[in-house]
Order: sequence, then C-alpha cells, then structure tokens
Amino acid sequence: LTATTVIATPRQEPITPIAPVRITEPAKVELGKQLFFDPRLSMSGVISCNTCHNLAFGGTDNLKTSVGHKWQAGPVNSPTVFNASYGLAQFWDGRAADLQEQAQGPIQANVEMAMPHNLAIEVIQSIPGYRKQFEAIYGDKNVSLNNLTDAIAEFEETLITPNSRFDQWLLGDNDAISVAERKGYELFKSSGCIACHNGPAVGGTMYQKMGLFGAYKSSSPSQGRFDVTGIEADRYQFKVPTLRNVELTYPYFHDGEAETLGEAVDLMGRLQLGRTFKETEINQIVAFLSTLTGERPDIDLPHLPASGINTHRPEPFK
Amino acid sequence: LTATTVIATPRQEPITPIAPVRITEPAKVELGKQLFFDPRLSMSGVISCNTCHNLAFGGTDNLKTSVGHKWQAGPVNSPTVFNASYGLAQFWDGRAADLQEQAQGPIQANVEMAMPHNLAIEVIQSIPGYRKQFEAIYGDKNVSLNNLTDAIAEFEETLITPNSRFDQWLLGDNDAISVAERKGYELFKSSGCIACHNGPAVGGTMYQKMGLFGAYKSSSPSQGRFDVTGIEADRYQFKVPTLRNVELTYPYFHDGEAETLGEAVDLMGRLQLGRTFKETEINQIVAFLSTLTGERPDIDLPHLPASGINTHRPEPFK
Ligand code: HEC
Ligand code: HEC
Ligand code: HEC
Ligand code: HEC
Ligand SMILES: [Ca+2]
Ligand SMILES: [Ca+2]
Ligand SMILES: [Ca+2]
Ligand SMILES: [Mg+2]
Repeated sequence: LTATTVIATPRQEPITPIAPVRITEPAKVELGKQLFFDPRLSMSGVISCNTCHNLAFGGTDNLKTSVGHKWQAGPVNSPTVFNASYGLAQFWDGRAADLQEQAQGPIQANVEMAMPHNLAIEVIQSIPGYRKQFEAIYGDKNVSLNNLTDAIAEFEETLITPNSRFDQWLLGDNDAISVAERKGYELFKSSGCIACHNGPAVGGTMYQKMGLFGAYKSSSPSQGRFDVTGIEADRYQFKVPTLRNVELTYPYFHDGEAETLGEAVDLMGRLQLGRTFKETEINQIVAFLSTLTGERPDIDLPHLPASGINTHRPEPFK
Repeated sequence: LTATTVIATPRQEPITPIAPVRITEPAKVELGKQLFFDPRLSMSGVISCNTCHNLAFGGTDNLKTSVGHKWQAGPVNSPTVFNASYGLAQFWDGRAADLQEQAQGPIQANVEMAMPHNLAIEVIQSIPGYRKQFEAIYGDKNVSLNNLTDAIAEFEETLITPNSRFDQWLLGDNDAISVAERKGYELFKSSGCIACHNGPAVGGTMYQKMGLFGAYKSSSPSQGRFDVTGIEADRYQFKVPTLRNVELTYPYFHDGEAETLGEAVDLMGRLQLGRTFKETEINQIVAFLSTLTGERPDIDLPHLPASGINTHRPEPFK
C-alpha cells in the first residue's frame, strides 16, 4: 500500500525486500494448488499438504511436531511453505535440492501421507478433471510423478509474502516501523544475527551449526546435515530458517522446543552469539521480527475435481 | 449463467430451484468462515470443521466414517454442509434443531474435535483478532458459545449451491439436461423417489425409515430417530438426505456402506420402493442425480488471526 507510493531512496541493507510474484503459468499454478489441497494424495484421504502447511495461517501447523498418518508424531517441526522457494535447499537438513524434489517426500513418507507413489499417480490419473489438466499443461495424458511435483512446486513458488512493514521501510517509508522496532533491527545487525539471517528471506541462504557457544540439548533424533552427508563437521548443522512471518510460525527450532519468539531470541543470543540479552533487548528484537510479517496471498479455495468411478478409495484404518 | 438469461416459464415441479444467497451480515459470515477453518477449535490443533466437511470438495470427507481426534473412527458418515440449512433439523437423527445448535456438537465430541467448550471459548477469547471481531459484531468482548456457534451457523447458511443444470432446466432452459437425464428424472418421479426426496434441497424435509421393504443390514450402531425419542416407531428412521451435489458426497447412507451412486439407487429401489431397477434405469437415475451438482461458492481461504502469547497451545498427543 504505502510502499508502492513512496519514492524515497531504497535503503541498502543486508535484508532486501521480496518482490510480489509474477505468475507466468496460471494453469499450472491452479493445478498445483488443487494438488496442494487434495487429501486424496494421502492413504487416509484426510491429510493434504495444507494439513501441515496451513495456508490460512503461517504455512505451518503450529505444532511442536506434526500429526501424520494414523496420528503418528513426526520427528521435526514443520517449516513454513511461505517464501520456501528462497531456500538454498529444502528441509531442515537440506536433503532435497528444490521444491520439486521436496514434494516427493511427504506423499510417500509413512509418518506423513503414507501413500506409495505409484498409488498416488494412479489416483490422480483416475480423476478425469486432473487428467484433462495434465494433458493440457504437459501434453501427456499419463500423469507422472515428475509433472505432479512440478505443478506443486510451481504453486509453492507463488507463496510469497511481500510488502511487510519492514519491506516498506526498506523501500524508503520511514514511518513504516516504530522506534522500538528500528532499535530491534539495529541490535539484530550489531549483535550478529544478520550474519546468518540475511537476504530476501532473512534466512535460507546457508547451513549453520545449532549450538556454537554450548551444546543445544534436544530430544529430536535429527542431526541436521550430518544425516545427509555423514560428515562429522555437519553434525547439528541446520538450514538457517527464514524469519519472514516468524510471529506466525511458532513453535520454534527444528524440534519445536521454543514456544515463544522471546524464548527463541534469548536462546539464539546465548547459543549462537555467546551473548545474554536483557529483557528490553529481547523485546526490541521480537518487535523487529514482527515487522517481517508480510501480505499472505489471497487464495481461492480450489474446487477439487470429482473422483472417477474407479478411483481407488482412501483407506484410513487399514 | 444460462439460467438467468432464460425467460421461458419456470416449470412447476416437486423439486424447486435453490436461490443464491444474499449475504446480509458479511462481517459475521467472515468470522464464521474463520472459525469453520480454524483447527484451534480442536484439542489437537489439526482438526477443523473443514477437515470433515471439505469445502474444496463436496462438503464432506468422502470417507465411510470420519477420522477424528487421535484417529478415532466416527460412528456415521459425514453429511455435506452444502445446503444443510434446508434440513428440517440437523444430524442423521435430527438431534439438533438447527445449524447453531448443531455446531456445539463436534467441538466437544470426543471422536471429533475433543475440545471442552470452556477451553474452546478460552482459546478464541485469547486471540486478539477474534476478540476484536466478536466485540464489533456482538457488542461483547467476552466470547460466548452462543455467539461462536451463531457465527459458524451464519457462515454455513451461505453454503448454497445454486444454478445446477437441473435448476436451469426448472427455470425453463430445455437444453440444460440431456434426454437420458430427463428420463432419469421422470423415473425418479414415477417410481416414487420424489415422495421422500423433494423440495429445494431434494431431501431434508422429513424422516423416513431406512428399509421399508426389507431390513437394512448395517454394522453402524445408529438407530436413527429412535436414539433421540426412544419411540419404537422411530427405530431406523433417518433424515432423508439432500441429493444436491450427491455425485460428490460418496460414499452413501448414514453408514457410508454404498460406495457408488449406482449402488445407492439400486438399494433405494429395493428397500424403499420394493422395486428392482434394470441397469439402464439405474444409469438414467444416476445421470439425473448428476444434474443436481450446483455451483459451489467461491471461498477465499481466510487469513486466520494469530494466537496471543497466552493462547492455550494444542495438545495432539496428550
Ligand atoms: C504430516 C505433516 C506434513 C505433510 C502432510 C506435509 N508436510 Fe511438508 N513438511 C513437514 C515437516 C515436518 C517438514 C520438515 C521435515 C524435515 O525438514 O526433515 C516439512 C518440510 C516441507 C518443505 C521444506 C520447507 C523448508 O523450508 O525446508 C516443503 C516445501 C514442504 N514440506 C511442502 C510440502 C508439500 C508440497 C506437501 C504435500 C505434498 C507436504 N509438505 C506435506 C510436514 C508435512
Ligand atoms: C551462527 C548462525 C546463527 C546466528 C548468529 C543466529 N542464528 Fe538464528 N538460527 C540459526 C539456525 C541454524 C537456526 C535453526 C536452529 C534449529 O532449528 O535447530 C536458527 C533459528 C532461529 C529462529 C527460529 C526460527 C524458526 O522458524 O524456528 C529465530 C527466531 C532466530 N534464529 C533468530 C535469531 C536471532 C534473533 C539471532 C541473533 C540474536 C540469531 N537468530 C542468530 C542460525 C543462527
Ligand atoms: C471428525 C469429523 C467431523 C468434524 C471435525 C466435524 N464434523 Fe460435522 N459431522 C460429522 C459427522 C460424522 C456428522 C454426522 C453425525 C450424525 O449425524 O450423527 C456431522 C454432521 C454435521 C452437520 C449436520 C448436517 C446434516 O445434514 O445433518 C453439520 C451442519 C455439521 N456437521 C457441521 C460441522 C461444523 C460446523 C463443525 C465444526 C465446528 C463440524 N461439523 C465438525 C463429522 C465431523
Ligand atoms: C420412503 C422414503 C424414501 C424413498 C421412497 C427413497 N428414499 Fe432415498 N433415502 C431415504 C432415506 C431415509 C435415506 C437415508 C438412509 C440412510 O442413510 O440410512 C435415503 C438415502 C438416499 C441416497 C443416499 C444419499 C446420501 O447422501 O447418502 C440416495 C442416492 C437416494 N436416497 C436416492 C433415492 C432414489 C433414487 C430413490 C428412488 C429409487 C429413493 N432414494 C427413494 C428415503 C427414501
Ligand atoms: Ca516453527
Ligand atoms: Ca456421504
Ligand atoms: Ca474469490
Ligand atoms: Mg481471491
């Protein structure tokens, strides 16, 4: 709103504004959206991507760890899908190169949707309304995992939250953030948070060890990058998460152990910077972080296409 | 589309067109929509009304019986919320007088959302974005169960699906339905289905015994109206369900035992009319029923308000 009318000089800062999406393939985005909301991609017929990445909220489920197929608890906290495309890789441990590769994971994962890929493809293929869209977009009436995940990824790339108050300030609107929020940002830079949380997504650009100035104690089995590379130096290295919309993505850290933003900031100070913040400092940083909440896209709930007569029916209790 | 431009004489039939909604209290509808989509009304934080009444599909979960809190199986099939306001009462056994009374059920029901009413109220009350809306709409900053369910019911009243091809035909557009579909409708009337499934919702106007010409065998514990009244004559009397959008609300009957519409029609013929339809007749009736699929409302996914710092956090595994 304000941001677009302001003509002052944009600020040169280590955090840069995120641009609104320009949608170039609307049909593919629409297909991807349908798939994102479709519980028929799960064995039970009740779990969709949106169950754990609620787009009505912050793109997460706001649980310590997710509830998946048959009410199983997942091992780690669900990260937001908003602005995920800015990440250098996907997942806390970066084990998927990009959104398309990532999307293969949860469908088949037993603690998430528990749907074998061949059955997922068969189900989508059996739904006339999907077959038609795949044919129109990919020129192939056979649905493939490749095209299915391509469509989901294309949709996810539209999940950008521009025009946060902080972006407005970056673009030159001096009044977009308060004095306390501004102080919080200065502290965020001067104390060193910015070394890890930077770029357009305020994170997502690197892996870093959790617990530089003392071990981080967690009950989570995840060992971060080490689980992917097996390299000792990668133990407990996690992708630095985006801090955009962070006030909506509680609880915090890969294990979801920190319930509030104040708690997370306090711990970051101690463990990543060897510094104990005063309460006023924590409050200022939290105030700054809340200026990173952007405009969530307006999403029309899709009208999912009807199952065919031979569409394999969900089996929640098998 | 066509319907509105056609000026031929509306047909006089025992099924009447449904009118598009006129929204008189948009703020209340918006609040009700947020609550309908909000998983914080459940103990686990993952189940919302929309989980079992998926508005992206036919307003149901398309399961035999629902998956509720801790993956418990519900006792009966989830009916659609589309056009539910036309029902003479709510639930298969009519145990709630209206939508507002109905909405109290699932929040607290242990096999559904498992959230004690006082905790549900406390959670909503603790969310600043909700408090503000309740105060603006009801002039009371204390959220009450009465106002909460009033808002949900107001939203549900907008879940109307007008302008089906059958409605277009009723309004005078002769080409809106095919010859086979028309034959199916004639059979639906002449064989007696219309005696029970009539009115604007093609159902919802009365209770009837399931199994008039032979007992209906079901593994469901439900005894219909008898569970409410204790009157012997009410045993196995169920609310006649709406047949609008019935092609989207599989599986069928209160126990979800019939997987396809063909199966349901066949059984209705035998059990309610003592008549065995030929396959072509079943196909014609099924073809007619598919003309009852209306235009689902365009629903913008709500932007749910953020929890407050003291909002009770969900406990999926407790
Ligand atoms: C049952 C819960 C659940 C479901 C269902 C689920 N996810 Fe996830 N998602 C998670 C969790 C937990 C993680 C983190 C896993 C990890 O890092 O090891 C994750 C990670 C991701 C990420 C990586 C984000 C980042 O910044 O690293 C993306 C993108 C994503 N999911 C998209 C999807 C899509 C698309 C679907 C559906 C096809 C889906 N998810 C289904 C829980 C879920
Ligand atoms: C040396 C790198 C590094 C520094 C410095 C750093 N962080 Fe982090 N930050 C991380 C990593 C890595 C994680 C993820 C850790 C995990 O989940 O186990 C993280 C997580 C967070 C989270 C939780 C985000 C979420 O969605 O779970 C917040 C909030 C945060 N940092 C804020 C800060 C603040 C404020 C500072 C400065 C006081 C800071 N960070 C300094 C690397 C760093
Ligand atoms: C876990 C699944 C589940 C959840 C969650 C759920 N419902 Fe239902 N709903 C059902 C089932 C099953 C029935 C039928 C119960 C019966 O008739 O005894 C039903 C019945 C209804 C009906 C009656 C429709 C009719 O024609 O009789 C309405 C309206 C409704 N639900 C609305 C809601 C609202 C509003 C919420 C959230 C506050 C909600 N439901 C949450 C499964 C669920
Ligand atoms: C005497 C009353 C009566 C007659 C006649 C009747 N029905 Fe029904 N119909 C019902 C009742 C009651 C139910 C719900 C039964 C249950 O769920 O156990 C029902 C359920 C249905 C359903 C399943 C709807 C759903 O959402 O589950 C369909 C389809 C249906 N009827 C079609 C027909 C057709 C077609 C005919 C004529 C061949 C017909 N009915 C005749 C009373 C009747
Ligand atoms: Ca989180
Ligand atoms: Ca049904
Ligand atoms: Ca819209
Ligand atoms: Mg919109």
